[in-house]
Amino acid sequence: MRLIAFIADDGKPALGVRIHDEVVDITALGLPSTLDELLCRGESGMRAAVEASAAATVRRPLAGLRLLPPVQNPSKAFAIGLNYADHAKESKFEPPSHPVIFQRFPSSWVAHGEAIVRPKVSTQFDYEAEFVAVIGKGGRYISKDKALEHVAGYSLFNDGSIRDFQFRSGQWLWGKNFDRSGSFGPEFVTADELPSGATGLRLQCRLNGEVMQDANTRDMIFDVATLVAACSEGMALVPGDIIITGTPSGVGLARKPPIWMKAGDLCEIELEGVGVLSNRVVDET
Amino acid sequence: MRLIAFIADDGKPALGVRIHDEVVDITALGLPSTLDELLCRGESGMRAAVEASAAATVRRPLAGLRLLPPVQNPSKAFAIGLNYADHAKESKFEPPSHPVIFQRFPSSWVAHGEAIVRPKVSTQFDYEAEFVAVIGKGGRYISKDKALEHVAGYSLFNDGSIRDFQFRSGQWLWGKNFDRSGSFGPEFVTADELPSGATGLRLQCRLNGEVMQDANTRDMIFDVATLVAACSEGMALVPGDIIITGTPSGVGLARKPPIWMKAGDLCEIELEGVGVLSNRVVDET
Repeated sequence: MRLIAFIADDGKPALGVRIHDEVVDITALGLPSTLDELLCRGESGMRAAVEASAAATVRRPLAGLRLLPPVQNPSKAFAIGLNYADHAKESKFEPPSHPVIFQRFPSSWVAHGEAIVRPKVSTQFDYEAEFVAVIGKGGRYISKDKALEHVAGYSLFNDGSIRDFQFRSGQWLWGKNFDRSGSFGPEFVTADELPSGATGLRLQCRLNGEVMQDANTRDMIFDVATLVAACSEGMALVPGDIIITGTPSGVGLARKPPIWMKAGDLCEIELEGVGVLSNRVVDET
Repeated sequence: MRLIAFIADDGKPALGVRIHDEVVDITALGLPSTLDELLCRGESGMRAAVEASAAATVRRPLAGLRLLPPVQNPSKAFAIGLNYADHAKESKFEPPSHPVIFQRFPSSWVAHGEAIVRPKVSTQFDYEAEFVAVIGKGGRYISKDKALEHVAGYSLFNDGSIRDFQFRSGQWLWGKNFDRSGSFGPEFVTADELPSGATGLRLQCRLNGEVMQDANTRDMIFDVATLVAACSEGMALVPGDIIITGTPSGVGLARKPPIWMKAGDLCEIELEGVGVLSNRVVDET
């Protein structure tokens, strides 16, 4: 199943099941208006969404809908750094022996189709293709062998980074959290539609149509199960928490000369079987 | 004015004005139940709280109230690392040239009087005395000379840290966010009750009555105004955002041998003019 979050005609958030180029508004059918609320209902929530969309007599066209990020305000958004060996190398870091965990505030990301913003205080605006694991079932001290049972599904993320601010100190938060500098979407794909742990899938970033990053998710240093287990060792995960799983090599920072995103650029993140997350760059006004 | 967040008799969060050892429940008088909601009303919100408490005919005793953290779920909780030169030195870091910004999730802190939790996976549970600046008026690109106009008031924080997890990678999030490992409170003190920027105040941590940290807030490398300006350069601040401003020297990690908190310990953080934040340590069960 493929779920989208969007703005309904009444201006409020709604949740829809996408079927080809049409959408069943399941919020209008009495289900929750956000994915994290639906996930809080556990398996019965997902079952209700499947049943509601199958029984629906009304569908609306996908075209023209204003999308929202799949999760708008997760309790915790973990981002993972240096999780592909070739990216660690190009970034002049040692491959990590434990997951490198930082965080993004919801104010730092926009939906598919919205503009991502290059701030006026920097030109070093970089892309990072990543996929997201969305937690469906919460828990603490989740073992690696049970971890994928806690992942409800997947989506895509552009972990847009302001490099000079990121490296102003050893902690990356600043440059990873500029308002509207990243993106999340276009939709949420339930785990049953993908290989276990979303492994073995081609992950790409294209800038103005040119392939900048091209990798396979099997090359992650820490796979999804390991990341879920690690995060849950410190913190109880709750439904709707997201893990942004890290980017492969090819970022603009590592190129000679560096390539930075600028106004008018089109940045696309694609994961095989999941879709394409597409955003134009604008300058901050 | 001194505001406390607490659990009212109906089990719901409420906001009170503390006057000596008594509290006026301003939520019962029609004002918001959380500090961030009150702050969203701007100066008129604070004025309404002053007027409501002055006019109130009923007060309840402070003793016996179950407190909540002053802000339970801020949009953004920034924590500042290495912000006192002597602490940077004892931690074997260079003094930073820009603020070192990381973050704490609300799940990582408890209120004054609640237990802080040493997790079963580590013995390296360390204290860190800090004070908190609470944003009252939002904004982006706030200039340093206007920054203190955006700070509504102050409180205290124990930035409890699980050191082995903190240093598993270069990013500190993991060891800084264990569930219930830190504390925030006991109350919110409006800025007008303190020196400008809360500078020149004595900051202490005591463990079982013994002074472990003893410093003056004038020794911060980056003062409150600088921190507000810096954070707002990347992100629009909103009312209720908090900046946890960093700890001075004397942490357990830097001692020979190291001193770690353990079950039964009493950890107290005190800032002159603000109060004492006190928490017992328990082992995770």
